[in-house]
Amino acid sequence: MASESGKLWGGRFVGAVDPIMEKFNSSITYDQHLWEVDVQGSKAYSRGLQKAGILTKTEMDQILQGLDKVAEEWAQGTFKLSPNDEDIHTANERRLKELIGETAGKLHTGRSRNDQVVTDLRLWMRQNCSTLSALLRELIRTMVDRAEAERDILFPGYTHLQRAQPIRWSHWILSGAIAGNPLGVDRELLRAELNFGAITLNSMDATSERDFVAEFLFWASLCMTHLSRMAEDLILYGTKEFNLVQLSDAYSTGSSLMPQKKNPDSLELIRSKAGRVFGRCAGLLMTLKGLPSTYNKDLQEDKEAVFEVSNTMSAVIQVATGVISTLQIHHENMARALSPDMLATDLAYYLVRKGMPFRQAHEASGKAVFMAETKGVALNQLSLQELQTISPLFSGDVSHVWDYGHSVEQYAALGGTARSSVDWQIGQVRALLGAQQA
Amino acid sequence: MASESGKLWGGRFVGAVDPIMEKFNSSITYDQHLWEVDVQGSKAYSRGLQKAGILTKTEMDQILQGLDKVAEEWAQGTFKLSPNDEDIHTANERRLKELIGETAGKLHTGRSRNDQVVTDLRLWMRQNCSTLSALLRELIRTMVDRAEAERDILFPGYTHLQRAQPIRWSHWILSGAIAGNPLGVDRELLRAELNFGAITLNSMDATSERDFVAEFLFWASLCMTHLSRMAEDLILYGTKEFNLVQLSDAYSTGSSLMPQKKNPDSLELIRSKAGRVFGRCAGLLMTLKGLPSTYNKDLQEDKEAVFEVSNTMSAVIQVATGVISTLQIHHENMARALSPDMLATDLAYYLVRKGMPFRQAHEASGKAVFMAETKGVALNQLSLQELQTISPLFSGDVSHVWDYGHSVEQYAALGGTARSSVDWQIGQVRALLGAQQA
Amino acid sequence: MASESGKLWGGRFVGAVDPIMEKFNSSITYDQHLWEVDVQGSKAYSRGLQKAGILTKTEMDQILQGLDKVAEEWAQGTFKLSPNDEDIHTANERRLKELIGETAGKLHTGRSRNDQVVTDLRLWMRQNCSTLSALLRELIRTMVDRAEAERDILFPGYTHLQRAQPIRWSHWILSGAIAGNPLGVDRELLRAELNFGAITLNSMDATSERDFVAEFLFWASLCMTHLSRMAEDLILYGTKEFNLVQLSDAYSTGSSLMPQKKNPDSLELIRSKAGRVFGRCAGLLMTLKGLPSTYNKDLQEDKEAVFEVSNTMSAVIQVATGVISTLQIHHENMARALSPDMLATDLAYYLVRKGMPFRQAHEASGKAVFMAETKGVALNQLSLQELQTISPLFSGDVSHVWDYGHSVEQYAALGGTARSSVDWQIGQVRALLGAQQA
Amino acid sequence: MASESGKLWGGRFVGAVDPIMEKFNSSITYDQHLWEVDVQGSKAYSRGLQKAGILTKTEMDQILQGLDKVAEEWAQGTFKLSPNDEDIHTANERRLKELIGETAGKLHTGRSRNDQVVTDLRLWMRQNCSTLSALLRELIRTMVDRAEAERDILFPGYTHLQRAQPIRWSHWILSGAIAGNPLGVDRELLRAELNFGAITLNSMDATSERDFVAEFLFWASLCMTHLSRMAEDLILYGTKEFNLVQLSDAYSTGSSLMPQKKNPDSLELIRSKAGRVFGRCAGLLMTLKGLPSTYNKDLQEDKEAVFEVSNTMSAVIQVATGVISTLQIHHENMARALSPDMLATDLAYYLVRKGMPFRQAHEASGKAVFMAETKGVALNQLSLQELQTISPLFSGDVSHVWDYGHSVEQYAALGGTARSSVDWQIGQVRALLGAQQA
Repeated sequence: MASESGKLWGGRFVGAVDPIMEKFNSSITYDQHLWEVDVQGSKAYSRGLQKAGILTKTEMDQILQGLDKVAEEWAQGTFKLSPNDEDIHTANERRLKELIGETAGKLHTGRSRNDQVVTDLRLWMRQNCSTLSALLRELIRTMVDRAEAERDILFPGYTHLQRAQPIRWSHWILSGAIAGNPLGVDRELLRAELNFGAITLNSMDATSERDFVAEFLFWASLCMTHLSRMAEDLILYGTKEFNLVQLSDAYSTGSSLMPQKKNPDSLELIRSKAGRVFGRCAGLLMTLKGLPSTYNKDLQEDKEAVFEVSNTMSAVIQVATGVISTLQIHHENMARALSPDMLATDLAYYLVRKGMPFRQAHEASGKAVFMAETKGVALNQLSLQELQTISPLFSGDVSHVWDYGHSVEQYAALGGTARSSVDWQIGQVRALLGAQQA
Repeated sequence: MASESGKLWGGRFVGAVDPIMEKFNSSITYDQHLWEVDVQGSKAYSRGLQKAGILTKTEMDQILQGLDKVAEEWAQGTFKLSPNDEDIHTANERRLKELIGETAGKLHTGRSRNDQVVTDLRLWMRQNCSTLSALLRELIRTMVDRAEAERDILFPGYTHLQRAQPIRWSHWILSGAIAGNPLGVDRELLRAELNFGAITLNSMDATSERDFVAEFLFWASLCMTHLSRMAEDLILYGTKEFNLVQLSDAYSTGSSLMPQKKNPDSLELIRSKAGRVFGRCAGLLMTLKGLPSTYNKDLQEDKEAVFEVSNTMSAVIQVATGVISTLQIHHENMARALSPDMLATDLAYYLVRKGMPFRQAHEASGKAVFMAETKGVALNQLSLQELQTISPLFSGDVSHVWDYGHSVEQYAALGGTARSSVDWQIGQVRALLGAQQA
Repeated sequence: MASESGKLWGGRFVGAVDPIMEKFNSSITYDQHLWEVDVQGSKAYSRGLQKAGILTKTEMDQILQGLDKVAEEWAQGTFKLSPNDEDIHTANERRLKELIGETAGKLHTGRSRNDQVVTDLRLWMRQNCSTLSALLRELIRTMVDRAEAERDILFPGYTHLQRAQPIRWSHWILSGAIAGNPLGVDRELLRAELNFGAITLNSMDATSERDFVAEFLFWASLCMTHLSRMAEDLILYGTKEFNLVQLSDAYSTGSSLMPQKKNPDSLELIRSKAGRVFGRCAGLLMTLKGLPSTYNKDLQEDKEAVFEVSNTMSAVIQVATGVISTLQIHHENMARALSPDMLATDLAYYLVRKGMPFRQAHEASGKAVFMAETKGVALNQLSLQELQTISPLFSGDVSHVWDYGHSVEQYAALGGTARSSVDWQIGQVRALLGAQQA
Repeated sequence: MASESGKLWGGRFVGAVDPIMEKFNSSITYDQHLWEVDVQGSKAYSRGLQKAGILTKTEMDQILQGLDKVAEEWAQGTFKLSPNDEDIHTANERRLKELIGETAGKLHTGRSRNDQVVTDLRLWMRQNCSTLSALLRELIRTMVDRAEAERDILFPGYTHLQRAQPIRWSHWILSGAIAGNPLGVDRELLRAELNFGAITLNSMDATSERDFVAEFLFWASLCMTHLSRMAEDLILYGTKEFNLVQLSDAYSTGSSLMPQKKNPDSLELIRSKAGRVFGRCAGLLMTLKGLPSTYNKDLQEDKEAVFEVSNTMSAVIQVATGVISTLQIHHENMARALSPDMLATDLAYYLVRKGMPFRQAHEASGKAVFMAETKGVALNQLSLQELQTISPLFSGDVSHVWDYGHSVEQYAALGGTARSSVDWQIGQVRALLGAQQA
């Protein structure tokens, strides 16, 4: 029989350890991102060991100083990886031993590498979620600032991409700000998962479950889905055909072939990243599915997913903030895009206020739209006599319907597009921002 | 030019409305699940209309009675769908009009079908999440009951599917109970999304975002991932090779070909449903990605996903409860599966307590394992002299290490496998169950 | 100890078989779709058994006649399911036994239910792929017919949704026809997977792998991705803002609230179904991941996925065919959407033909675009003198550049937008259609 | 109004170009992998330009030599990126211009960067698929070699992880070799997508569709699904409980905490990568969904997906080859795992051969299994008299049933587990390998 590590049949590899396996197994190329939290975790753990009587005060101090030195080397870029450092935990422990000798060996009493992996990742995510949260607040603040300043600009609200009713531009901005609002989720994440205010209930579950990773990846996927929709809107609004907004040159790219073009690359990239981020979420869940309980090496997939998604989110949110803060809107085109047929619902409401059931009023208004189309005139150009052939309830005051400003002011319920309602929304989002910052 | 609806080139269809389009567009086959909440929502809305002066008291009463009649017909299975009923909302409104006449037309003043769709689905999910939550509490209660009754049974804890250390059987059960614990998520869902304690901030966002659906589907996916892992464990523990547990006949199936077989079909189905449920979550996110803001018909995909996932979760949780409540465990095999090499970590801790740094102790214990393997004896059969060739710190009291009961009692930290710790976990989960029920 | 099936702790269920488990386990509600192929497979198998000497000629005839009777009952809707029929295979066998007695018991000699499941599904998919393929040919034929008839209509080609260069409308249609072209894939599917020209190489692999299902689901996902992109284009082209095409009423839906609206519901549904179909593909792959080899009940998930996706594809393709065959295009708007700046690339090519390197020409043309913008005139309204300040290579013949028809005719390479090239594409697609039909 | 690039409200950024946007937009960090094929493509294109009369012979030679110099710099690691090189295409063109001057500007006449992107990626994938294909052949060859050498070793075949029937170990190996067989797919990929034997039919479709990327990612996902299942089998077979195989130390890892453990990390990583690879496939499809036709920057997501998946596949296949080639099997344990109840199907066939219908025989054999269990003896220890109480058809020759070798030899149909059938499978796979290599 062949020796333990020898090949039996075929195969490229002969020897004690397959170098491709070593590389495949190693996580040091990406988990070195964790150097700081790994040191932080080890310092806390050594204090715990001293309290438990495993380390003397002197030993603990030696370890703490050694760990500070390790951290300093990482911070200054002088930490040298050795070929046997398969992950950040073994690398830091190896270096600690070189610095302070055998005492280093006491640091890992009673904790497994699996504990370290999961603790470090939680610590890193706590820091990182806090950074992402700040970036998101900046994006939301930018949106609210614009919403406040541009409250008086009206443009078409679309459903099914068909012009529906006049709305305030600020109403659109706030729909995005609210959709992208991660404050609740984030706070929950921080509280329940990362601030360690609560301890994990079961030691088997603690090293085995990755809910905090899956939830972060899903939060990111959902957030990106919202941003992909906002990007889609802005790409459309920026076409020659819609021509409602103009992207700053700082976020556009020219064509290598067609001299006249300016492409909304920033928005297209934001839209596309929803796929990448969701792919990571899908990949992790597939990896988890059907896995036996407790630690399996499969769980190592969590880290690269978190790092990549975190980087992507950070870039996307900053670019989105830049796009929104420099976006120009074409006031006149927005106004011009409003047309009387968008007031057909208001026309129905006019009849409702005169006592007609809504379904009949809706039908009557539809007839008016059809009559206008047939005659080739705008809806507000139908004469009173013409309208009265549809319903005798029409009278001279119908002329008040044809005022876009009046139309939007009708929607004064909370959440609506009236000025007071938009102001209320601005106030609500500002309050959330304030609460979050405190 | 061809008539509006005529075909221009090729195509199967000639006429005013393509019947395949009608069927494709219609949602009545599945959204009739919503009949009850649709009536409930319309009743609330008609009260709102009366308060706002759109309906008189008499009209409101007429509508309320008509809606009660509609509900009665649904409840008794006598509601007759007409071919033009494209969804539950138009069906109920059509029937209401037949019952009470033109007044029915006033009910929809100032709300769009999109409002109804999203309100109905939120109401349905509130009810449904409450049912699922009760089923989950039943599963968790079953698990905690077993955990309490079987506290004294030890068996191997596995990592990487390799026998690691002795643990209590109850410790395994509780790791599942905690992992499957949806109470926090569910409470958050109910509070933030469904109890309408808060109003949506922005009307565009309200009909357009489906976060509450996406979050429900993701919660279900994550929950199923946990259940798939528990199922995998039990399938393995039930093999001839592990032989630690036996599935009740009530949850097993025979083979059509091989007379001796009894297959864990229930567990395999639980494991498999993780894929289906996640597929729905993935599908919805893909549907949402890049969609323009506000309502687009694409959003109609939400309902079938919610209904299917809800049905699947309900069946899975009940079957899992049945499996756990009838599962037999093989006490003797569990005891027999424990072997002295699983105490190698304890052997290292023995040396740590004598003052050796953990890394050295780990190495010393590894040498003992190797020595035992080489000699072909169990680890606890090495003589004291043999152990002392590895380290002079070994003395007579090393014999205390070879006691599995003693081993598990060491892990008395919260979350550990000591009896006191397991009792604490039982208490914690019971407290959560109690709090949730209140 | 509790009886075999009794509950030990908690749990809703007491008795021999949990009815929820029975329902959970049963597949008859959806696999009865397979009745025809199940009979077909059993008839073939009984012929095999006779050849192998397991059945006499008389027994085989008895079985064949019995199976024909079973099929007749299904076809006439008189087949009665019994509560113990857990799937189509046991239902048909049970009925056969009722009809012909004990001989029925010989039919399953040497084959397992798992064999039947996989054979039936392959047979069903062979039939079904053939139907889908015919529907797709109809869609493609419709597109090619339009492409041929409308070859002379020009409109803007877009990249990044920015107007790029003039193209033929037919060029756009054909890009869809080609993208949606499933002929190669389908033929491969049929040949390699379903026509049983080749036998499966390994019996373990045969019941265990579901590549033919996964590949079908992926083909459907990719096909839907293409259709979602075509739908997106048509939704955009149909907006008031683009106004290039108009969807037939047969494929549009009105708004319940806004009388003036006509929504492209058919296209939005097509776009949305990409998510659903892909979700099924994702779900199946997750179910398969990490499964032990050979048959596991998890594999039962394959059938509902195939049935749902097949139904969805069938509806989507037919609706898409209807949409394309009745779509109206607005010739004048298409012409009006062309603007001289879209010929900026042609202007650069003009300079290239005069000997200027392309990069310089691109820059020169860009300067012309900027000059026109600054002066507020169209690009073709710059005077020759003005152009000559940018490059002395401009001369009187530059006026030929400003002809859209001339522009598209430049792209006469295969695949281009010149009339000859479009004709060639039409010929190629027709040839593929012809080959496929033969 | 603010200047073009100035911020209007909030936002971090002031100035002409947001550096974060620049980094977000840039693809040079990963698309420099394409340097070689980019040069290759440009060389071919410049020959085309000369033939078309755009370049003189001298200019073409100048360009070809310049491109060779560019390639040389990349090969030697001396190519210096400049901060404005946003992708490999602009980097190479910029450098070419530095090397040969203005003539470089002629190279891009009539092709867009989008053409280059898609052509380069196709060229790179052609090379890369060929490498992956060779690695896969090596894996399959290793498996076939083992299958041939270990043909005479029997062990339990499992379904539902329950012991089912005796099979040859080689039969299991070949089920994996066949499942992992990518030759057909790969050949199709190469033929249809990458060898450019056919031209793309439509220029809009050519830059816009990414079917060749999606199909590659799906092929990789499906291949990984198979490998994840093989890994799962080997992890199980390697547990203390199954103890049928032993992983070489070269592919195992020790525990940092538990000295006695040896973990199958290599197999766990293989199993986990199915998630990552599928995640990339899911991500790309989501990115593509609903995208308008032709090029959009979203398509830039294709490259990182391809590079990562290609690297992962390469590592996984090589590690799998190493694992299989060094895996030890425990012959005695495999033999010991066979038990007479696994011959219950054979016992039924014995009765079938005596004339009993299979369903009755299955029932009779089931009674024998039950009788043996009740008496606490092995199935083959029932006496003839005892068997005859179940059926009078049992006679002395029933003893021949209890021979595992005889049992497997019954399955001599193609694809079965008889020696002749396994030999045939080996021959088939070898023939495929030979055909592929030629």
